[in-house]
Parts: sequence; C-alpha cells; structure tokens
Amino acid sequence: MEKEIICKREIIKIDHQNKKVVIDEIAIEYPLTIFVDNEEFATLVCSPSHVEELVLGFLASEGIIRIKADVKALQIDEDKGFAYVHLHQPIGDKKEFVSKRFIGSCCGKSRQFYFYNDVKTAKTILSSMTISAAQCFQLMEMLNEASSAFKRTGGIHHAALCSKEGLIKTFSDIGRHNALDKLYGFCLNESISLNDKIIAFSGRISSEVVLKVSKIGCGILLSKSAPTNLALQLAEDLNITTVGFIRENKMNIYTHSNRITK
Amino acid sequence: MEKEIICKREIIKIDHQNKKVVIDEIAIEYPLTIFVDNEEFATLVCSPSHVEELVLGFLASEGIIRIKADVKALQIDEDKGFAYVHLHQPIGDKKEFVSKRFIGSCCGKSRQFYFYNDVKTAKTILSSMTISAAQCFQLMEMLNEASSAFKRTGGIHHAALCSKEGLIKTFSDIGRHNALDKLYGFCLNESISLNDKIIAFSGRISSEVVLKVSKIGCGILLSKSAPTNLALQLAEDLNITTVGFIRENKMNIYTHSNRITK
Repeated sequence: MEKEIICKREIIKIDHQNKKVVIDEIAIEYPLTIFVDNEEFATLVCSPSHVEELVLGFLASEGIIRIKADVKALQIDEDKGFAYVHLHQPIGDKKEFVSKRFIGSCCGKSRQFYFYNDVKTAKTILSSMTISAAQCFQLMEMLNEASSAFKRTGGIHHAALCSKEGLIKTFSDIGRHNALDKLYGFCLNESISLNDKIIAFSGRISSEVVLKVSKIGCGILLSKSAPTNLALQLAEDLNITTVGFIRENKMNIYTHSNRITK
Repeated sequence: MEKEIICKREIIKIDHQNKKVVIDEIAIEYPLTIFVDNEEFATLVCSPSHVEELVLGFLASEGIIRIKADVKALQIDEDKGFAYVHLHQPIGDKKEFVSKRFIGSCCGKSRQFYFYNDVKTAKTILSSMTISAAQCFQLMEMLNEASSAFKRTGGIHHAALCSKEGLIKTFSDIGRHNALDKLYGFCLNESISLNDKIIAFSGRISSEVVLKVSKIGCGILLSKSAPTNLALQLAEDLNITTVGFIRENKMNIYTHSNRITK
C-alpha cells in the first residue's frame, strides 16, 4: 500500500464574511537524513512515500552511486526519518564535489553551468524516439488525473515515467526534485531502459530538473509549467526535448522539436 | 533600474492543430557562486536582480552573518556570477553546521526539525500586531498586481515586505527561497524593524519558508499557496501567523489566528 502523504488538520476557513473551523487536508513534510557509511550525508524534506527509491535516486543524481549494485545495504528507520546506506566502494572525495561549481571551458561544449558531479553524470541523450503532439496532450491529461494528492492539498508535485501509450508509474512529493529522484530510484531498482520512455512532470523546468532528466537518461520531458533559459540551454546541449505549458490543447516546444511529430 | 530577469527566445507554439514559431518570454536562471573569505561557500541559481540583497539574506539565513555590519566587504562580478564576501570574524565551524540536522530533545519545545544553524537563528516572534481579513485580501491582491514577471513567464515567485496599508518592496526570483532571502537582505541593508510588518508571498509554505520568516523576524505570513504540516508545526512553535490559499474572497488561517481580526 502507498504510504500516506497527507494528514488532516483543523483550520479556520474564511469565505467572504463567513468564518468557520473545518478539517482540512495538508501535505505531510517529512525530514529524511541520509547517512552514507555511517556519516551524515544530507537531509532532505520530502513526502514520506517511496523513500527507498528517493534515497537511491538522490545518491545517483549526486554522483555517489551509478547503479543499484553500488549499494551494499540500505536500511530505513521510518520513525526517526533516517536512511542508512552502505556502499561497496568508499565514497572518497565524491562528497566534496557535490556542491562545487564546475568552472572552466575545457569541456568544449556550450555547457555553461554544472556542479562538478554533473559534469561526470549528466549524459547527452542518444535516443531518437518520437511522440506525437496528441500523445503529449494525452500523457499530461493522464498525469493530471493521477494527481489526486495535488487536488486535495494544492502542495504536491508529480512525476510520471511514461511509455507513448500511458503512465507506467507516478511519484508524488512536496519537492519537485524529490519526485524526479523517486522516479530515478525506481528506474535503477527495476533496471528500466529509458530509450523509449517519456517523463511527464507537474513542476517548472529548471536547470536542475533538466540535469536530472539527463542523468536518468530520458530524451523527452513534458511539463505543465514554465522553463528557465538556463534549463533550455542545457536541454539543447544534452539533446533533450522539452515541452512546457501543456494545458488543454496548447503547448510550447522549446528544444529538439524533431522528437515531436504532427 | 531593476535588472532584467526575463529574456526572449524563439519557441514552437502548438494551439489545437496549429503550429507556429513565436518569440516567447522566458525567466532567466542565473548561477551565483558565493565565496566567503576566498573559499567557495555555495552556488545558488536565481533571478539576476537584487543580487547583493540575496547574498546578505542567504548568509544571514544560513547563520553566517547576523547583521550587515558583520560583512567587511561584498563585491559582485555580475558577468561571472561570483560574489566575494569578506567577514570581520572568521567563519570558523559555522559552515559545517549549515546542513547538519539538529537531533535531540534538549530544547524542551515541540521543535521537531531544524538544522543546527536554525536552532541558533530561528527566533520566536514576540510581535502582537494584528491585521484584518480585509487587509489580507488587499495585500495579496496588490502582490498579484505587482507580479508582472510571473504573468509574463509563469516561472517566477514573489515576496513582498508589507505594512498593513500596502507593499513596501517586492522581490522576484525563480526560487521561492531566494525571493525571501532578497527580502531578508533588504531588511538587513535598511535596518528595517519587522515588528509591524507582514510578508506576502506567492509560494508554498514549507518548513524552510517558515524558518526564514522567523529569522527575518516577521509575525504574519500571507500566501496564495498551500502549507505543509511541518511548516505549520514550526509556525505554531515560533509564534508565526500563517494564512494560505488567499484567493478572491477566501483564505485559510492555519496558525496563531489571534493576529487576524474580523
């Protein structure tokens, strides 16, 4: 069963001149501290579902692991909000590069901004799959339908791994990045090939979102929301098709439009 | 003059069956690396306006400085996206505590989750100012009117420092947290007393948002969006009034409703 990510709480609702106490549904925010080989590595605040996938996806995204087999053991203490990870190889100097900016022009491409670990882990996408505009609308419509937690609380993001035909699995989180990390962890767990997959996403397309999609290895990102210019520069560079503002019968294709057919 | 935070870009717009190339407005995402006493401290991605305020507010929020006078020098290289900060006192061990989770029950209150530096910097708010529900609606309406960058790009958050009567100053950023840090930096720069002020905010109310509001020292947070349960627990604890989903004539009062009068 899916872990509950919503709780109930008494609030005061004002509607025009009326004031009343009602029970409302609120998104749960859950602090999760990840220890790697007994050292505190990072604390995320997240929705408490798919926590194992989140830990795997987060560590892969940060360049600490590459595949699931890099993890010797993973234990989660749900009550405390602690995840204990043990690796086969010592973490070495990987941790200090996580948040270090990569400065230099040596990579010879237009990549203007990465953290050090991104330079190692972000992959140019080689997939040449295509999808029709009608399928884009359909997948986003399916994501909206699957987004009951958002409708109930207004505070939750969704990311779905999709085939052309429909959603394979949807992940929810109060954090946009966490929703994508959960999706990444799921793909690592299940050894899913991303060559023919699409990611449908409720959140805005920032540079970090594009970098995550490239690390996951997916060539098409569909979103309900807006992109930033840096995200689009990275998407150009990493050969990722980005489509935003998919609402009703409208959408904007920003990069690598060759993957979107009539 | 306000720095430009939006750029233009050619995109493909699909509207029903029609496909056309148009020029669209996109939010700029700007990487800013902060060096403290010649050491790389952190890299933020932000909108390139009010960068000095952002640096000050971010460092205060992280517990590195307390007041503006703690900063000996601040230089910004806009082209490179580098900010060089020099402090009067050496940074010492403050940096390592920024992202360390505070674990323990010694503080004797219900505070369930803080990073180490939050324990030192988050303040319980003592202000007993009140505001009417009608003023809440009015301030949020003013924030919406001031939010032209959001309307143009769909990707920008806004935070405004307000008196009961209206907006004093509005800050925009692609990141919710950055918008609040800019507001914080402005208050430090101008030595503004927060006792009789309100913050109006476009973004969701997470634990980090409530902690920032408490550090800034403001007792009333108004938002268009949803809160999380952890944010509300912290707001209870820190004596902050939180009001969410302020839209048209409706709003939800979550905590310390005594500050909201009829």
